[in-house]
Amino acid sequence: MAEIKVVEQIMKANDAWAERNRALLAEKNVLALNLIGSPGSGKTTLLEKTFQAMGQPERFFVMEGDVATSCDAERIGQCGVDVVQITTGNSCHIDAHLIHKAFEGFSLDTCEVLFVENVGNLVCPAEFDIGEHAKITILSTAEGHEKPLKYPLVFEESELVVLTKIDLLPYLDFDLDVFRANVAKVNPKVPIIETSTKTGEGVADWVEWIQNRRSQMA
Amino acid sequence: MAEIKVVEQIMKANDAWAERNRALLAEKNVLALNLIGSPGSGKTTLLEKTFQAMGQPERFFVMEGDVATSCDAERIGQCGVDVVQITTGNSCHIDAHLIHKAFEGFSLDTCEVLFVENVGNLVCPAEFDIGEHAKITILSTAEGHEKPLKYPLVFEESELVVLTKIDLLPYLDFDLDVFRANVAKVNPKVPIIETSTKTGEGVADWVEWIQNRRSQMA
Repeated sequence: MAEIKVVEQIMKANDAWAERNRALLAEKNVLALNLIGSPGSGKTTLLEKTFQAMGQPERFFVMEGDVATSCDAERIGQCGVDVVQITTGNSCHIDAHLIHKAFEGFSLDTCEVLFVENVGNLVCPAEFDIGEHAKITILSTAEGHEKPLKYPLVFEESELVVLTKIDLLPYLDFDLDVFRANVAKVNPKVPIIETSTKTGEGVADWVEWIQNRRSQMA
Repeated sequence: MAEIKVVEQIMKANDAWAERNRALLAEKNVLALNLIGSPGSGKTTLLEKTFQAMGQPERFFVMEGDVATSCDAERIGQCGVDVVQITTGNSCHIDAHLIHKAFEGFSLDTCEVLFVENVGNLVCPAEFDIGEHAKITILSTAEGHEKPLKYPLVFEESELVVLTKIDLLPYLDFDLDVFRANVAKVNPKVPIIETSTKTGEGVADWVEWIQNRRSQMA
């Protein structure tokens, strides 16, 4: 039973750090969105397009989670947005304490929205509260329409599902209706925004969702 | 330090089970291949095409790892191949003890190759020795050519990299030469087989690799 006890202790410590993060975000009036998706689901590219569409980069702050490299953080930095690289080594998720440490040295005074791009992984990040206001599942059409059933936790925990790479639909055996039905089986209320960063389709809907969610905080 | 000690204990227990699995596989002269890739990288479809190409389903045995559902195991079962579903709950990888339990009730007498389709995850499964002869990375072109640098451990640990969905190359910003160079940076010796289960390209090379690897055991 020692293993279970340690896991409980880890989760308890995590939740305490998550509460501290939540308090800091509330004090600064910053909306925190936790983006969770597989490697290559298109999280970084979606953020690039988001900043291009929204302008005023001083309103945003990004934490980039990766097991190795800082190439995603460099891409975000080129958008003029403040970004912190969180390199987890071989750890498969970002925990609340890593987030807390990443706040150091940033004032957040002009920040309205913090985007956390979690480690590319559809399993482990879903289990950790990092103090975010909403988890968001990012899934690419190339991953297949059955994924909500195979990886239910992240879909259950999410306030929004963003389907990426819909420009690839003509070349894939991906059935949009089956996908929507599978999402609804796991989380009947969660909205789905269908996007392509190649054609720009759906990016405006995603931006509008962010703005609405931010205005709910005021 | 309690957390580190427990992790060490878990890995030690895992390695002991891995040794038992290795001994059983040696006794039965079965080659065990551990397929690791992201959700939707095409692991199950590659196995389906493998069995269609190789025939004699009694020579194969599959363990299907998933956090939820048994839909992949059902697909493999339809190929006439013996398959065991390993459902991990919210656990993000298969460990050696789960493999050991999955052997129960199977004689392995006609089996030549065991394929373990690990949980869809490019991070955690790479850390666990399950008693396999070789880990194999399965990556789809839709995931991007930088992935070997971003998820180095699985590429370092692998004896082979199978790139899937090369039929999508005309529609993606995936540079094959950059990908090959990135793989070589992480693991200079590992071969890459480029495949499409849509067009059948590369499947014969993959089958040949399996047959050669199996003959090295004799």
